[in-house]
Amino acid sequence: MRTLGIDPGTATLGWGVVDERGGVLRPVEYGALTTPAKSEPARRLLLLHDGLAELIRRYQPDAAAVEELFFSRNVTTALAVGQARGVVLLTLAQAGIPVYEYKPREVKQAVAGYGGADKRQMQEMVRMTLGLAAIPRPDDAADALAIAMCHAYAAPMLRRIAEG
Amino acid sequence: MRTLGIDPGTATLGWGVVDERGGVLRPVEYGALTTPAKSEPARRLLLLHDGLAELIRRYQPDAAAVEELFFSRNVTTALAVGQARGVVLLTLAQAGIPVYEYKPREVKQAVAGYGGADKRQMQEMVRMTLGLAAIPRPDDAADALAIAMCHAYAAPMLRRIAEG
Repeated sequence: MRTLGIDPGTATLGWGVVDERGGVLRPVEYGALTTPAKSEPARRLLLLHDGLAELIRRYQPDAAAVEELFFSRNVTTALAVGQARGVVLLTLAQAGIPVYEYKPREVKQAVAGYGGADKRQMQEMVRMTLGLAAIPRPDDAADALAIAMCHAYAAPMLRRIAEG
Repeated sequence: MRTLGIDPGTATLGWGVVDERGGVLRPVEYGALTTPAKSEPARRLLLLHDGLAELIRRYQPDAAAVEELFFSRNVTTALAVGQARGVVLLTLAQAGIPVYEYKPREVKQAVAGYGGADKRQMQEMVRMTLGLAAIPRPDDAADALAIAMCHAYAAPMLRRIAEG
């Protein structure tokens, strides 16, 4: 099963693709879509949409995972992230890809073994578990891989529940 | 010049189309797109996208106007509105329609003559100015018409500035 993890943002959208087979995770690819700060909001959202649609075509994920939005320092951030997140959910729906949402604590619990893990610990667990030589850059890509891993771990369980 | 005003929301998206010629405004059509509360967020955003794309095809606006987001009571609302707003901006960008943003105070100033107008006064001014028999329903449609009117009033000025 192939999962696309996404960490939405207007300036930078982190993404990571993880395959799971028999409980073993394998990294496929990861990276970040960036949009020029000088562009208008609508133009930046269009770039995100087209970039994400291209990633979906290229990697053909079975499912996508995003973080549930918690929040947050300020409302302006929430709005900006909300706009990017809306475009992400739309693009996935257009491609018919089911979306799973996980709370930040759930992602930490699944990836690092406890819900209070800090950023550095999370990044190191992503690196080790996926057998990567270095911690994925930028941070948004590492976050996206962690979200994909959370779903990859949860998926066999979800399948068992679905099959009764 | 034809303006599409939009009041974004996930449950209800208000819209209104206004024509301006020589400073005179004429209503074309208005209404609201609604999405079923039981649907998943991604599905609701897809319905909004497809509904708005259809309105754009039908009415072929020259420009679109949305309110700048101010905010707000709580952050959850900001996120939900942000998601819907992201899809609206994307859909307009995909259709190549320029988007203008106005602050709530600017909309009130343009439509009612002063920035402190209340909801009821705004609705009555929308009704009177557009020569409608009754106040447009739902409220989201009346709000969308007010935003379109604000841009329709501002547009001749913007043209003069653009022409130097």
